[in-house]
Amino acid sequence: MPLRSIKLTIAYDGSGYHGWQAQPGLETIQQKLDEALSSLPGGKTTIKAASRTDAGVSALGQVAVIQIDSPVPTENLTVAINDRLPPEIAIVEAIEVPRSFEVTLGAKNKHYRYTIYNGNTRPVLRIKHCWYVPGKLDIEAMSSAAEKLVGTMDFKSFASAADTRTNTIRTIFRCDVTDDGDWIHIDVEGDAFLYNMVRNIAGTLVEAGAGRLKPDRIPEIIEAKNRTAAGPMAPAAGLCLLRIRYHQ
Amino acid sequence: MPLRSIKLTIAYDGSGYHGWQAQPGLETIQQKLDEALSSLPGGKTTIKAASRTDAGVSALGQVAVIQIDSPVPTENLTVAINDRLPPEIAIVEAIEVPRSFEVTLGAKNKHYRYTIYNGNTRPVLRIKHCWYVPGKLDIEAMSSAAEKLVGTMDFKSFASAADTRTNTIRTIFRCDVTDDGDWIHIDVEGDAFLYNMVRNIAGTLVEAGAGRLKPDRIPEIIEAKNRTAAGPMAPAAGLCLLRIRYHQ
Repeated sequence: MPLRSIKLTIAYDGSGYHGWQAQPGLETIQQKLDEALSSLPGGKTTIKAASRTDAGVSALGQVAVIQIDSPVPTENLTVAINDRLPPEIAIVEAIEVPRSFEVTLGAKNKHYRYTIYNGNTRPVLRIKHCWYVPGKLDIEAMSSAAEKLVGTMDFKSFASAADTRTNTIRTIFRCDVTDDGDWIHIDVEGDAFLYNMVRNIAGTLVEAGAGRLKPDRIPEIIEAKNRTAAGPMAPAAGLCLLRIRYHQ
Repeated sequence: MPLRSIKLTIAYDGSGYHGWQAQPGLETIQQKLDEALSSLPGGKTTIKAASRTDAGVSALGQVAVIQIDSPVPTENLTVAINDRLPPEIAIVEAIEVPRSFEVTLGAKNKHYRYTIYNGNTRPVLRIKHCWYVPGKLDIEAMSSAAEKLVGTMDFKSFASAADTRTNTIRTIFRCDVTDDGDWIHIDVEGDAFLYNMVRNIAGTLVEAGAGRLKPDRIPEIIEAKNRTAAGPMAPAAGLCLLRIRYHQ
């Protein structure tokens, strides 16, 4: 068999995992996927993902590319891999792509959703997939702050200090705050993100919603190019990688 | 302080617990609640619940009664107890009731919901709170079978063999099957339930939905008064105790 490049769309509940990236001695999504693939005939492969999600972060649309030398037809791969994965990880789609497919550099749009629960009693059934913030948040203030984050700007103030990349200019296409009863969603789409950027944005928007930060101060926070200017980082549990779109 | 009887409405994600009932060496909901109460001033108490939910079963409206000798005012109890509980267990409401309040015998209506996911890819974020059944189920057939379960009847065919109660006559007020996209809910309300009764009903309705059981056979299954006549037991993960109503 010639080697095939397969683009996998992957969903997972990250709450019990130490993130995407394989790490010795820790349970990670990549490790589980690697084990599942290794048990397929000819399934030994390298796996490269578009986004290295952190510990506790979930995904409905992570994308990874693998090269396999397996006789399993592409159309049967989803079921074959899912049969070998734990219940909280699933392949949503498997399609063959050209060998030139660039899973990280080829991504043109990443859509993350940050979920907050703002009701009275903590939502026990979804507590691992949200940030429970008691005390009514001002959605208008959050929206007003959010729209000031849209555009091509230097987002250094929203990057974790652990991010050592020198180019901190990114484009945010969309940053919407919507509420659905006691649930609040922050939908952020961008071309690429700095380390912990979406969680730092969510933490900052909650500051605005709680009245501790005036939405007008966002441009000044961006201008500061200093992590301490923005709000605290929101917990990993609320973050979900919804979709990645490609140029192809 | 005089002893007060407090009726607690409790929500929990049962997926990581060995059921409600305290058992030596196992993590249970009752044990966590007992620990939380014991750490309150004057919080030592006995706890009695309306329903002993099984391992893996969740609740949004479990009811328990406690007798406490604590100076904490009733209106502050919810917050005080919640501060001491793990995130996946929460008190929804705490109200004082007369000492004569009967938490088990006084219940006049229990509402359980059984949740099935019937889509193509397993729902990773909710996999611990549903039964994932691939292969399109026939909702009409399930509804038709469900309505034949409504009434006052001998439900011995739907009781686990471990249920040793001799009176197996119960009243089901409502058994509705509804679908919401790929999700299917079975809502069952009754005066009381035999051991595993709702899960055995759900398993039987799925047999009907999968075309392996004609809905018309339900009366004959009830008539048999034999567990083997009904369908297999559905997994605990799909079951949630939604609400208990009292005569008072």
